[in-house]
Amino acid sequence: MEFWFSEKHTPNVKMSIRVDRQLYSGQSEFQRIDVFESPEFGRFLTLDGYMMLTEKDEFIYHEMITHVPMAVHPCVKNVLVIGAGDGGVIRELVRYKDIENIDMVEIDEQVVEVCKKYLPQTAGWLDDERVHIHYEDGLRFIRACHDRYDLIIVDSTDPFGPGEGLFTREFYGNCYKALKDDGIMVNQHESPFYPEDAVACQRAHKRIVESFPISRVYQAHIPTYPSGHWLFGFASKKYHPLKDLREAEWNQRGIPCRYYTTTLHKGAFYLPAYVEELLANVELTPD
Amino acid sequence: MEFWFSEKHTPNVKMSIRVDRQLYSGQSEFQRIDVFESPEFGRFLTLDGYMMLTEKDEFIYHEMITHVPMAVHPCVKNVLVIGAGDGGVIRELVRYKDIENIDMVEIDEQVVEVCKKYLPQTAGWLDDERVHIHYEDGLRFIRACHDRYDLIIVDSTDPFGPGEGLFTREFYGNCYKALKDDGIMVNQHESPFYPEDAVACQRAHKRIVESFPISRVYQAHIPTYPSGHWLFGFASKKYHPLKDLREAEWNQRGIPCRYYTTTLHKGAFYLPAYVEELLANVELTPD
Repeated sequence: MEFWFSEKHTPNVKMSIRVDRQLYSGQSEFQRIDVFESPEFGRFLTLDGYMMLTEKDEFIYHEMITHVPMAVHPCVKNVLVIGAGDGGVIRELVRYKDIENIDMVEIDEQVVEVCKKYLPQTAGWLDDERVHIHYEDGLRFIRACHDRYDLIIVDSTDPFGPGEGLFTREFYGNCYKALKDDGIMVNQHESPFYPEDAVACQRAHKRIVESFPISRVYQAHIPTYPSGHWLFGFASKKYHPLKDLREAEWNQRGIPCRYYTTTLHKGAFYLPAYVEELLANVELTPD
Repeated sequence: MEFWFSEKHTPNVKMSIRVDRQLYSGQSEFQRIDVFESPEFGRFLTLDGYMMLTEKDEFIYHEMITHVPMAVHPCVKNVLVIGAGDGGVIRELVRYKDIENIDMVEIDEQVVEVCKKYLPQTAGWLDDERVHIHYEDGLRFIRACHDRYDLIIVDSTDPFGPGEGLFTREFYGNCYKALKDDGIMVNQHESPFYPEDAVACQRAHKRIVESFPISRVYQAHIPTYPSGHWLFGFASKKYHPLKDLREAEWNQRGIPCRYYTTTLHKGAFYLPAYVEELLANVELTPD
């Protein structure tokens, strides 16, 4: 039997993954949710047909969105995670004993329920006693927060559909306000390669640059995302992602990783010329 | 009309590219050669159905395989290029005025003819007077070379089919012999992600480590290659790819690049933990 899931990365490029079985398919208030079992990538989750994570390569995304800021900020106690219904970011965060509180704001409770049932590899740490899940709109939640968090991780879906509002100037401005004086925000930034994605990258970068004094972009190789070349934004009120990297201190924690190392951390901020140019083009220009 | 080229990256994953027209299809003495025109990637070349290059992203591969060694070695005058029938490596090399001679050894003359006709973006520099094309087996050519080249670039196809012999211990040993006392060899190393490719990576790395005192691996994001995460091997008799990087000197040359920068050069050698482990596993073990 030939049974394939395909995702169009552009109207002219698609990636297809052989499927053993569809484990779940449902429609929530916000989106269509599917879980598949595949020989190459293990289980994988899609929302509205877009790949969110596979068991085989999710470690790359989750390690890179979590450990990069954690190796820079000297004392993270209070964290806000927006999105992240699959639990992968939470799994990485609960490895830090000094973190005291994690507020997770996910708009779609059904995503969390489905992941708890079918994706224990990522969702198995959501019951940690430091984790508080708020099922509401991240945009609305953050409006009421002032000077509260050391770290905000924006683990959004794509800049269309339910995640759209998480790529706006208002949202990033509210994140700034919700952070303490030495707070850091990290967000996923899409890919620089295909023209439509590159525009989304530029837009997100421009809005973050307008809101934060320090804003740098870093990259990772994520095979199941469009082009495999994925960017993250590091935005900060005080700490620089390279000059303030606490390499020895982080390594003393003894957190074993499969992608992240403090050496890789540095290399991840050294971007290809065309990506540097994409970003520089929006840093100084008016709307 | 739906007209798609598909390549299986494993038996369970495929990438598909929408095609406008097939521009060429032929069978040489060694392999099947095809050229397609596509809306997303421009023209692209396949050999035996495997993606070799697209006009849209070939700059990444060709800049990274060429400029990394050129920014380390202080005085490259004589270069050997093995494979590279598409001419992309030659295009990057002829930008260096101090290079006096380039021997290009390509087993398949028909590839060169096809690329000259259909892919002038890469093949348009093959008539440079410093370029000497030898249509023969790279394995055999290099056996007769001693202490001759400053740089050898092994731009092979995959480690099966016509390129197979270019991944053997004998071949790398002959490259060592063909290099001068301060020579550098760079080769393409496949991808670390899918298990079968990772084994090919490990095998190539092991054989190079056995032949050269300095052997380091670096990476690039190449969207149209399997997983998008591609590795290159830097093997050297004397120069270290980071400690001996001649950053200011290279930048003074004013060679405009779209992917390579001397900053990116450094980051490209900082590999993910799982890749470091893959490579370390073969560095010290017997066969």
